[in-house]
Amino acid sequence: MVNISVIGATGYAGAELMRILSGHKKVNITHAVSKTFAGKALSDIYPNFMFRDYTLEEMDIGAICHDSDIVLTCLPHGTSSEVVPALLTGGVRVIDLSGDFRYSNANVYELWYKMAHKAKHLLGESVYGMPELYRTRIRNARLIGNPGCYTTCAILALYPLLVQGIIETGGIIIDAKSGTSGAGRKADTGYSFCETDGNVKAYGIATHRHTSEIEQELSLAAKESIALSFTPHLLPIKRGIISTIYVTPKEGIDEGAVFAAYGMFCDEPFVKVYENSLPEIKHVAGSNNCAIGFALDKRVNRLVIVSCIDNLIKGAAGQAVQNMNLMCGFDEREGLCDIGWYI
Amino acid sequence: MVNISVIGATGYAGAELMRILSGHKKVNITHAVSKTFAGKALSDIYPNFMFRDYTLEEMDIGAICHDSDIVLTCLPHGTSSEVVPALLTGGVRVIDLSGDFRYSNANVYELWYKMAHKAKHLLGESVYGMPELYRTRIRNARLIGNPGCYTTCAILALYPLLVQGIIETGGIIIDAKSGTSGAGRKADTGYSFCETDGNVKAYGIATHRHTSEIEQELSLAAKESIALSFTPHLLPIKRGIISTIYVTPKEGIDEGAVFAAYGMFCDEPFVKVYENSLPEIKHVAGSNNCAIGFALDKRVNRLVIVSCIDNLIKGAAGQAVQNMNLMCGFDEREGLCDIGWYI
Amino acid sequence: MVNISVIGATGYAGAELMRILSGHKKVNITHAVSKTFAGKALSDIYPNFMFRDYTLEEMDIGAICHDSDIVLTCLPHGTSSEVVPALLTGGVRVIDLSGDFRYSNANVYELWYKMAHKAKHLLGESVYGMPELYRTRIRNARLIGNPGCYTTCAILALYPLLVQGIIETGGIIIDAKSGTSGAGRKADTGYSFCETDGNVKAYGIATHRHTSEIEQELSLAAKESIALSFTPHLLPIKRGIISTIYVTPKEGIDEGAVFAAYGMFCDEPFVKVYENSLPEIKHVAGSNNCAIGFALDKRVNRLVIVSCIDNLIKGAAGQAVQNMNLMCGFDEREGLCDIGWYI
Amino acid sequence: MVNISVIGATGYAGAELMRILSGHKKVNITHAVSKTFAGKALSDIYPNFMFRDYTLEEMDIGAICHDSDIVLTCLPHGTSSEVVPALLTGGVRVIDLSGDFRYSNANVYELWYKMAHKAKHLLGESVYGMPELYRTRIRNARLIGNPGCYTTCAILALYPLLVQGIIETGGIIIDAKSGTSGAGRKADTGYSFCETDGNVKAYGIATHRHTSEIEQELSLAAKESIALSFTPHLLPIKRGIISTIYVTPKEGIDEGAVFAAYGMFCDEPFVKVYENSLPEIKHVAGSNNCAIGFALDKRVNRLVIVSCIDNLIKGAAGQAVQNMNLMCGFDEREGLCDIGWYI
Repeated sequence: MVNISVIGATGYAGAELMRILSGHKKVNITHAVSKTFAGKALSDIYPNFMFRDYTLEEMDIGAICHDSDIVLTCLPHGTSSEVVPALLTGGVRVIDLSGDFRYSNANVYELWYKMAHKAKHLLGESVYGMPELYRTRIRNARLIGNPGCYTTCAILALYPLLVQGIIETGGIIIDAKSGTSGAGRKADTGYSFCETDGNVKAYGIATHRHTSEIEQELSLAAKESIALSFTPHLLPIKRGIISTIYVTPKEGIDEGAVFAAYGMFCDEPFVKVYENSLPEIKHVAGSNNCAIGFALDKRVNRLVIVSCIDNLIKGAAGQAVQNMNLMCGFDEREGLCDIGWYI
Repeated sequence: MVNISVIGATGYAGAELMRILSGHKKVNITHAVSKTFAGKALSDIYPNFMFRDYTLEEMDIGAICHDSDIVLTCLPHGTSSEVVPALLTGGVRVIDLSGDFRYSNANVYELWYKMAHKAKHLLGESVYGMPELYRTRIRNARLIGNPGCYTTCAILALYPLLVQGIIETGGIIIDAKSGTSGAGRKADTGYSFCETDGNVKAYGIATHRHTSEIEQELSLAAKESIALSFTPHLLPIKRGIISTIYVTPKEGIDEGAVFAAYGMFCDEPFVKVYENSLPEIKHVAGSNNCAIGFALDKRVNRLVIVSCIDNLIKGAAGQAVQNMNLMCGFDEREGLCDIGWYI
Repeated sequence: MVNISVIGATGYAGAELMRILSGHKKVNITHAVSKTFAGKALSDIYPNFMFRDYTLEEMDIGAICHDSDIVLTCLPHGTSSEVVPALLTGGVRVIDLSGDFRYSNANVYELWYKMAHKAKHLLGESVYGMPELYRTRIRNARLIGNPGCYTTCAILALYPLLVQGIIETGGIIIDAKSGTSGAGRKADTGYSFCETDGNVKAYGIATHRHTSEIEQELSLAAKESIALSFTPHLLPIKRGIISTIYVTPKEGIDEGAVFAAYGMFCDEPFVKVYENSLPEIKHVAGSNNCAIGFALDKRVNRLVIVSCIDNLIKGAAGQAVQNMNLMCGFDEREGLCDIGWYI
Repeated sequence: MVNISVIGATGYAGAELMRILSGHKKVNITHAVSKTFAGKALSDIYPNFMFRDYTLEEMDIGAICHDSDIVLTCLPHGTSSEVVPALLTGGVRVIDLSGDFRYSNANVYELWYKMAHKAKHLLGESVYGMPELYRTRIRNARLIGNPGCYTTCAILALYPLLVQGIIETGGIIIDAKSGTSGAGRKADTGYSFCETDGNVKAYGIATHRHTSEIEQELSLAAKESIALSFTPHLLPIKRGIISTIYVTPKEGIDEGAVFAAYGMFCDEPFVKVYENSLPEIKHVAGSNNCAIGFALDKRVNRLVIVSCIDNLIKGAAGQAVQNMNLMCGFDEREGLCDIGWYI
C-alpha cells in the first residue's frame, strides 16, 4: 500500500483521479485537498461517491508530505509551479497534471502560456509522463509532468511514424475534437447545455498551448524541429477526444509500412492500433486506452490517422495513475480499466 | 405595422421573441433593451441574427413609450413589477413574460414567490394571457401576464376536463419534464453540459411557483379550489416540455367522453388533441403548438394525459406574440409557426 | 474461480455482462454465445473489448453445461424458457435475465406477456433475484429470475414503505423515465439518434409488462394485492432510469418516519437512501447503485419518492453479477462498481 | 402561385422540403409522393405536420406532370435518373436532390458512385444548383442538380479563394463533421441513439462521393484540375455541418486579402463571412445560411477556414427552395429562414 494525496480533488480531472484511486487495491488516499470545498464531503460535490466518501481539506503541505508517498497535483498551470517545489522539498514524489512541468525549455512554456515559469530549476529533472515513451525514466522519477489530453492523443498517433522516418516532418495537420469535460468544471455560459448541445465549434486556432507540447515530443521523435497545425474543436459530448491527423507519407510507404511502424506499441497495455478499421470515441471512453487507425489516400498522397482517447482518463487521471503504478513498481494496469463503456 | 419594443432581449425568452418578431411581417422593432449588453449588437451575443441585427440599448422608458405601441417585458419577476407601471403610465400596452402579472390574488404571489408584490393595483386589470381561455379579454387588454411554460402545458391539458366536470378535482398529479432553456441563460455549473447531458433530475418538489399558477386557473375551471401535486424535472434537451398528468375520471367516463371534452379546442390554431396516440416533444418543438393525448387505465381507474409544448415558444415568446396578434387585431397565427422542426 | 457462460452475449445487457465479468477476479468465462455473430470476435461487434476479446459461439448446451458452474442467459422472453430447462437438466445453475422466471404465478405472466409460459414447472423453484429482498434464498438457488430494470428501480423505492405499512396501498403512481439502452440493440428508426435526441415520449401506458412484476413484489410486501399506475418514458440518454413515485402517506407519517422505514437498507452495499436531497441519474450511472430520496408535500398529503439506477447495471447485468456472487459465496461486491461515473 | 410536387416526401430531406414549402406563401403543393407510405397522411409519419397535413401518394408521373410547374425529387441516386427524364418529357421543370445531375462528366459520376449513369444525355443541360455560383443559369434551367450537403459547405468556403488565386491549389484538406440527419431516415443500428450519442467517428476516408463534387466545382474556380483530401465525420447532433479546411496561402496573403476575396459574397442573402470570429453550427442550424470564418496561422503558413451550414436546409431542402424561387422569379429569400434557431 502506498499513501497518496490529491491536491485539487474537485475539478473534473481531480474527481476522476479520486474515482480511479478509490478502486485501486494498493492505494490509501491520505489527503484530498480542495480550496473551494474544504470541510465538505466529496460526496456533497460529487454524489457518485456515496459509498466511498472523503473529507475535503485545506492544503497543509506539512501534513501532506508527512502522510504521503506520492502527491498528485490537479491545479491550474501557474499554481502548480508554486506548490510543487515545497512538496518535493518535503520529501514526496509528485505527479503534476498541469502544464507546468511538461516542458524541458522554459522559454517555450513562457511563449505559449504567456506567463513566467516559477520553478524553472525543476524542468531539467521533471519527466514527461507518457509511459509509452519514457517508461524507464518514469519509474524512478521524483517529478512527473503528466501530459495534456490533446497531446497524448496526437503524440501516440505520430511518434512511431516520425521515429521510423516514414512521413514528412512538414505540413502535419492535427484536427482534434474534444468533449466538454476538457474545459473543466466551471460556471460559464459558453459551456452550458443550451449553448453546447447540438453545436460544434473550433477554437484557439494557431494559439492553443497543446501545440507546443506536441511539437516538443514530436521534434524529439523526428530529431529535428517540427512545427505543425493544431485545431481543437468543442464537441457536444462529455468525454473523449478524436483527432484526425493529416500527414504526407514518404515515397514508397504503403499501409503495411505504416502498421509496421506502429509495432513499437504492440506490447503496450493501453495502446491499440487497428489494422483495417478506424477507432471511434465510444471504443475507448471510460478506459485508459488509446486506439489508433489510419487510411492511406494514394490519390492525393496523404496518410490520414485517427486517434481516440478518453480525455479524463488516458488524457489526464488514468495516465497519472499509470505513471504512479510505474513509480511504485506495481503492475502498470493496476486499478485502470482497459475496456471502454461503449454505451 | 405596429411598433414593438422588447425589454430584456438577450435572455433566452427575449432572444426567442426577437427571432419570432424579426420574421413577423406586421411588426417594426423600435427598441431592443439589454442591461447587460447595451451598446453591443444583438449578433454579438446571438450570431444567428447575422442578417437581422439590432443594436441593444439601455432602458429609456420615455423613448420606449414614445416609439412603441406594445412593449414586451422579459425581465426577472420582481423587476417587471417595478418597470411595468411606468410603461403603462407612458401610454403603451404591455405583455409581461414574468410571473408578476399572472395572479389575481397578490397573496398567492407573495406566498409562492416569497417577496412583496410591487404593483398590486394592476392585478385587477391584468389579463392572464392564454388565448384559448381569455381570447376576448386579451384583444382589449392594456396589460397581459403571459403564462409560464409548465403552466401552459398543464393548464391546456386539464382545463377542458375540469370545465366539463368529468374528472375528480382531488389528487391531480402533474409530472413535468422540461428542457434546460427553461432555466434561462446563466453561468451556473449545474446547467453546464457535463452536468446536464446524460442526466435527469427532479427539483422543486412541493415548492415550484408554477404550482400556484396552475391551481389558480384550474380552480376557475372547476369552480372550486384545487390543490395539486406538481413535480418538475430537468431534461438533457434544449427545448420542450412533456407533462404526464394523472387524474381520476368520474364514474362512467370513457375515452369518447374525454375526447369530447377536449372539443372546446377543436378550432384552436395551436392546440391539437390526439384521439388515438400520444404526443412527443419532437412533434411540437420549434412551433407554437400544444399537443395533447391521453390513455385511460381502467384497471386502476386512472386517466393519464400527456401534453407537450416548446417551452420557449408556446411556453413564452410564441404565446406572447399570439397575444400581441390578438391585441393588434392581426390574424392570431401571424409570424408564428405551426409546424414543429421534428429534427 | 468459477466457470461462467453467457448466452446472448451481444445484446446490450449481454455485452454489459461480458464487460463486468471480464473485470471480475474470480470468474473464468468459458463460453460466450451469440446466435447472430457466432464465429466472430466480440471485439468485431464491440471494439471496446480490444484488449479482452472472446470468440462468439453457437449455442451448444452440452458443452456449456460441461464447462460451466453458472450460466447467465440474456435471451428474449419466451426463448429463455425454451433453453433454461435443458441447462438445469445439464447440471448448471442459471441466472436468467429475461422475464420468464420472475413470476410465481404463470397466469400473471401469460396475461401481461401475451404468450403461454413454456416452463411453468420451474416457477415454484425460481428465486426472484433481488438481493435486498431475497439474499438468503439466492445463495442456494438453482434458478434465478433476474429482475427487470424499471422494476428494480421501483421496488427498492416502495418495498420498505409497504413492509412498514406507512403508506396507503391504493393509488400508487410510478412515473418512470429510462435511457434508450433499455430498448436493447436494434435497427429501428424509432430509436435512431435523429428521432430520439431532443425528444421525450411516454409509451406503453397501462400495458407495460413491468407493471405486473412490480405489483407481484409489492403485494408481497404489503401482504395484500396491489394494483398501481406505471408509465414509462423514453429519454434521450443512453443509460439510467429515474422514477418519480407518488404515494399517500398514512396519517401522522413525517419525513423521519419515512427515512426510518428505509432503515432496512442501511447495510446494503448498493442501496443509498438520501435523507435531505434527491438522487439524479448521474449519481448512479456506471455503478450498481440504487439511490433513493423523497419529499413530503404536506399541503396535498403526498409523498414523492425519487429512485435512480443504471438500467444496464443494477437493472440488468450488475444485479445478475451480484446474484452470481451470492450464489458462489463471494463478497457480494466483487467485480461490481459502487462509484458512478458522474461524467 | 406555382404548383409544386415532391417525390420522396418522407425521407429527411423530403420532409424538410415539405416543412419549408408548407410555409411558402407562393406555393401550392399538388402531390406528395412516398413509395413506402402511400395512402397514409404525412402526419402519420411526421406528427409535426398536425396542422398542415398532406395525403401521401404513389408516384403517377402523368398526374404529377399535369398538376405541377416544378417537381422536386428526393430519391436515392440511381433512382432519380430513372424518373427525371419522364418528368422532363412530361413538361415540368425538375430540381433533383440526389447526386445524379450534379456532374458534367458522367465518367466522374460512374467512378465515384460505382454505377452506370442512366441519363447521361441530360448532364449537358442540368445546372449545378448553387445560386452563389450559377444564379443566372438557374433562373432559366429546366433541370437542376441540387448540391450535396458537405459540398455546399466546402465549395462556398473555397470558391472565392481559388477564383482570386490567393491560395495554392494543391494540398487542400477538408475535415468535415456532420449531424446524423445527413445519413437519412433509416433503421440501422449504427445510427441508433445508443451507438451515436457521446460518439464521433470518421468514415469514408478517401472514398466519399462528395469529394468528386467538390473537386468539380473548385477545379472550375481555379481553372485547373484540383484533387483534395476530404474526411467526413459523424457527430452526435441532429443537424448541421462544420468543415475545418486547411489550405496554403500564397506569398504575401494576409487576413485582409482573404476577407477581400470573400467580397464576392457580400450581397448574398444567405452567406455571411465573419471578419474576426469563427462560425459555429448553432449560428446557422435552422436557417438557410452559410457562415464562414478563418484564421491565418503565419507560424506554419496555413490558412484555416471554418464553414457551417444546416445540412438539411442550405445543404438540401433550403437550397432547393432557393433554386425554385430563382426559377419562378420570386424573391430568392421567399419562404426561407435567415435566422438560425441558436437553441
